[in-house]
This record gives sequence, C-alpha cells and structure tokens, in this order.
Amino acid sequence: MGASLALAERTRGMTAPNPNVGCVIVADGVVVGRGWTQAGGRPHAEAMALEQARERAAGATAYVTLEPCAHVSPRGPACSDLLIAAGIARVVVAHRDPDPRTDGQGIARLRAAGIAVEQGVREAEAARVMAGFLTRRARLRPFVTLKLALSLDGAAAMADGRSQWITGVEARAHTHLERARHEAILVGRGTWKADRPRLDVRLPGLEQRAPERVVLSSRAIDGVRTIAQPAEIAALAGDHLLVEGGARTAAAFLADDLVDRLLIYRAPIVVGGGRTLPNIGLTDLSDAHGRWRLHDARALGSDRVEVYERG
Amino acid sequence: MGASLALAERTRGMTAPNPNVGCVIVADGVVVGRGWTQAGGRPHAEAMALEQARERAAGATAYVTLEPCAHVSPRGPACSDLLIAAGIARVVVAHRDPDPRTDGQGIARLRAAGIAVEQGVREAEAARVMAGFLTRRARLRPFVTLKLALSLDGAAAMADGRSQWITGVEARAHTHLERARHEAILVGRGTWKADRPRLDVRLPGLEQRAPERVVLSSRAIDGVRTIAQPAEIAALAGDHLLVEGGARTAAAFLADDLVDRLLIYRAPIVVGGGRTLPNIGLTDLSDAHGRWRLHDARALGSDRVEVYERG
Repeated sequence: MGASLALAERTRGMTAPNPNVGCVIVADGVVVGRGWTQAGGRPHAEAMALEQARERAAGATAYVTLEPCAHVSPRGPACSDLLIAAGIARVVVAHRDPDPRTDGQGIARLRAAGIAVEQGVREAEAARVMAGFLTRRARLRPFVTLKLALSLDGAAAMADGRSQWITGVEARAHTHLERARHEAILVGRGTWKADRPRLDVRLPGLEQRAPERVVLSSRAIDGVRTIAQPAEIAALAGDHLLVEGGARTAAAFLADDLVDRLLIYRAPIVVGGGRTLPNIGLTDLSDAHGRWRLHDARALGSDRVEVYERG
Repeated sequence: MGASLALAERTRGMTAPNPNVGCVIVADGVVVGRGWTQAGGRPHAEAMALEQARERAAGATAYVTLEPCAHVSPRGPACSDLLIAAGIARVVVAHRDPDPRTDGQGIARLRAAGIAVEQGVREAEAARVMAGFLTRRARLRPFVTLKLALSLDGAAAMADGRSQWITGVEARAHTHLERARHEAILVGRGTWKADRPRLDVRLPGLEQRAPERVVLSSRAIDGVRTIAQPAEIAALAGDHLLVEGGARTAAAFLADDLVDRLLIYRAPIVVGGGRTLPNIGLTDLSDAHGRWRLHDARALGSDRVEVYERG
C-alpha cells in the first residue's frame, strides 16, 4: 500500500474532478503492475496497472488507495469490473470512495464476484494523499493550504510591505514544488498590486505546470480570475488551492475556517514591527489550542518548514 | 573535558563575579577528583578536585574549563600554585581566563613549573558554559537571554494582553529551569503591573533559587529593583539576565543589541491580531539575516523550544 500511496502522490493536483489514485498489483510476491490516475483523470490507476500486468493479474492481489469505481463512464469501464474480468483474487483498499456512484458499491461488486476485499488499510495516509478529492466531496470546496513565510517573530513582511526575502532559496524552491501540486494559487489584491507575483512553477522539468492564478478582490482585475470572498473558492475547478498571502488574505481564510493545512516557512531572523497576521476572530486563547497538529517538519537551508494539519 | 564542562554547568548563574569552572583530574585513566566552582564563587573547581584526589594528583592530568587563576586572594590561594604543589603533570585548558590578574599568567606559571599545558580544547563549548563570566569581561554587562513564548504567528499575547496560556506546562517548567540559571530576571513595567509575575523558580528542589527581580521602568516601584534603560543592566550584580517580556521590553533590548541568546517557546496555535514584537530599528531585511544561529531545539509537549545564539 505504501507504493500505491506514493504512486497516487504523483498526480496530486492534476486529476480533478477525479481522485488521484495509486494501484499496485502483486503476484507471488512480485510487482506485476503499477498504475496511477493520469493527468486529466483518465486512465484510472487500476486500468493502467492491469494493462501492465496482463495475464499475470489472474490470482493476484491489487492494492488501491481508493475503492475501485462501480460506475461506467463514456471515458472508460468501471474499475471494479476490470478487476473482476482480469481474475484478481484479492483487493486491498485504503479509503472508501465517497462518490455516490460508488460509495461501497465497488467493494460490494468485487465481493459478489468472489474477490477477497480488505478495507481501511493505511486509511489516514490515503486521506492525506487524496485530500483534494475527499475535501471537495465532504466540504464542497477545494482542499486549502495556507502558505506563510515568516520571521521568528511572525513577520511576513516589513511594515512597508517589503518581503524579499524573508526566507532563503531552498525554502522558495520548496514553495515552487508545492505550487506544482495545486490547481490554483490565490493571493490578496494588495499582494497582487504590489508584487505582481508570477505564481508559476520555476523548477526544472515542471515549468509546464501552470496553476490558475486567483486574486481575492471585490473588483475585477484584467487577465486574472477574481473572487470577492474566501467562501467563493467553491466555484474553482481544481481540488487544491494554495493561498500565498498577504497577511490580510491569510487571516480572512483562517477566520472563515477555510484552511486545511498550514505550510509555514520559518526564517531565523527577527524583524520587529513587521506585518503579522491580523485578527482572525479568536476571543479566547484556549480556543486556539488543539486546532493544529504538526504533521511534518524539516530544515531547508537555514530555514525550516513546518506542516500543520487540522488537529 | 566533556565531564568538566558538565560540572561547570552545575553552578551557572550562582558564582558571579567568579566564573563557573569545572575540573576533572584523571590518573592512569581513572577519575580521581572532580570539582566545580561552588555557589558564591569559592572554593574554586581546581581546589575542590585536588582535595578529592589528594596524593593521587601526583603525575595526573587536570582538565579545566578555564585557565587556572594566577592570583592569590584573601579567600584562597592561586589555583595554578595548587596544581603545581599537588604534582599535576599535565593540564588541559578549554578557555583562557580574560581576568587581567590571570590572562595567560596561569598557564605561564604552570609551564614554568614543568607542567605540560594544552589550551583551546573545546573552547567554543566552554565559552557557552561560562558565557556570563566572559560576557561581563568582554562587554561589561551580564549575558542576556531573551525569552519569548509565541504562537505560530508570533503573538506573545492576545491584543488585550492576555497570555495565559500560549504555551503548555512542559514549556513553562522549562522556563523555570532557565530561571534557576540566572541571577536576575527582568520584565517591563506593563507586564509587571498587569501580571505581577512571581518570577520565581517553581521546580522541586530548586525553590530556594531566587533570582533578583528587575523591572524596566523610569519610575521607582515598591519592593522591586528598577532600571530606566536596557543599557543600565551593566549595574546588575549577576552575570546572567533573563528578559521575560513583554513585547515592548523585548524590542527595547533587541534594538540596543543587548540580546546574546534567544529562547523561543513556540506553541502550535494561531492567534491573529495578537501582541507581536514592535519595531527594533531594522531598515533592511538583508540586515536581519546572519544575526542569529540555531543552537538547539527540542519538543516540549506539543510546543517546541528553539535556542538561538549570536550568528
């Protein structure tokens, strides 16, 4: 399942409205097929893995990060039917598919065909890898990551708005990698006007990734999509939104409880009197606790990145 | 030398104006004496270690964190003379003693007596352990640690000043341990009036440690020492000062470049619109870089403490 999860990670941010699924087929202890949802959503992971495995799929075990779909579409057959037709003997599933066209029916169909099915294996990790798809279904909006590049004292910029540079080159490269995993990037109107950020992916081999640029603004802006309120992100097509600032925009998303993941780049500098996060509606310190849980942290040059998830 | 450094650490904050020194005497690979500067400054580490070693000191090696003193005082003989008289064959020194009464003369006297002397072994670590003594000599003031307990967004308190609690019990216990290593603790007038902090050491076995309480205030306050300006810390008797806030006081010390060590307790909470560090006189972001270097970090419950030193 670990390998399937890694495969699913490959097209995070590229498969909406489909989930990014990973699939590994193992026969007699040997991997005979590997698949992942292709950019655009098709082929599905199972179809790709079965295509590789061919006749070796008979009697084999398939490890999939999401319940195989039960619905036929104009773009391809149902994966549960494909697995049955290939003679798969056992299917290990990480996460159930909340899509009402499947939602347990994929697993039921496999079992009805005599296939052994295990469910819930490494489910929490699968939920993290496919967070965009699952958040869209559960909350009817994209999964939102808020990026903050901060000094030790929490400044995102100096008082006059200068923020080049709080963090170093390694942290900025890491941000570009994060951008490549998002269908859309949003900044506030102030940041857009002040910095005209390119918001593109400037990493070798990933230059073709072009997340949609969105500006939080009540007025239209030429050449870029605008939304007037954070709640309007529901209308975005992608399932992953990266909010890059500034501080007021970050606060607006936090105040509306629209942030699913905090990505904090911390530089070992003290600014003093800089632009920090404004009011997010907190009335009691005790309410702030338990809201965020550290998921990952690592050094990036002399900076450090910390990833927090909903606690 | 590692053992000597650990012994020196025992009375950090308790020996001013004397240095907190550690000494280990080794004969034929066996430790025969261990000493450290006693609270109040006497006996010296070497005297204590030699007292333990007795006749086994003859031909042995002494590891000392600071150059043995060359001056006789009414409170005891010069340690270099004691080492010679005991027949020590070799002395390994971490850091030279900047006290003009010694400053190389201790080592010279040992060598003149035929003792082999090595100097500069683990010198940087010794400088850290005896930072109070060395800072007093080099900068004519105590070594200053600035403690900040901050949210992810840099808030030391909510906008109305409430700060109980940003951090958890483990972080607060760690603060008490830090207090025990300081002769004085300073807060700003606002923090003093608002919180009436006890600023004592509430840890089992350490309750008798009572750092002097100092308030940064231009007006006198009954029952507590005041200084009107950060620069006036030179008048404090101890060699270690812990500045505990609030944010304005922290900024005043940073603006005057009087902070030698940052002790940052970081809680995994987002406050928004809280009290953050005000202006410290920074005019260009590039000037903020390279000023601080991460020395140590560890988890304290769900919080994290980071220790930064001058870069």
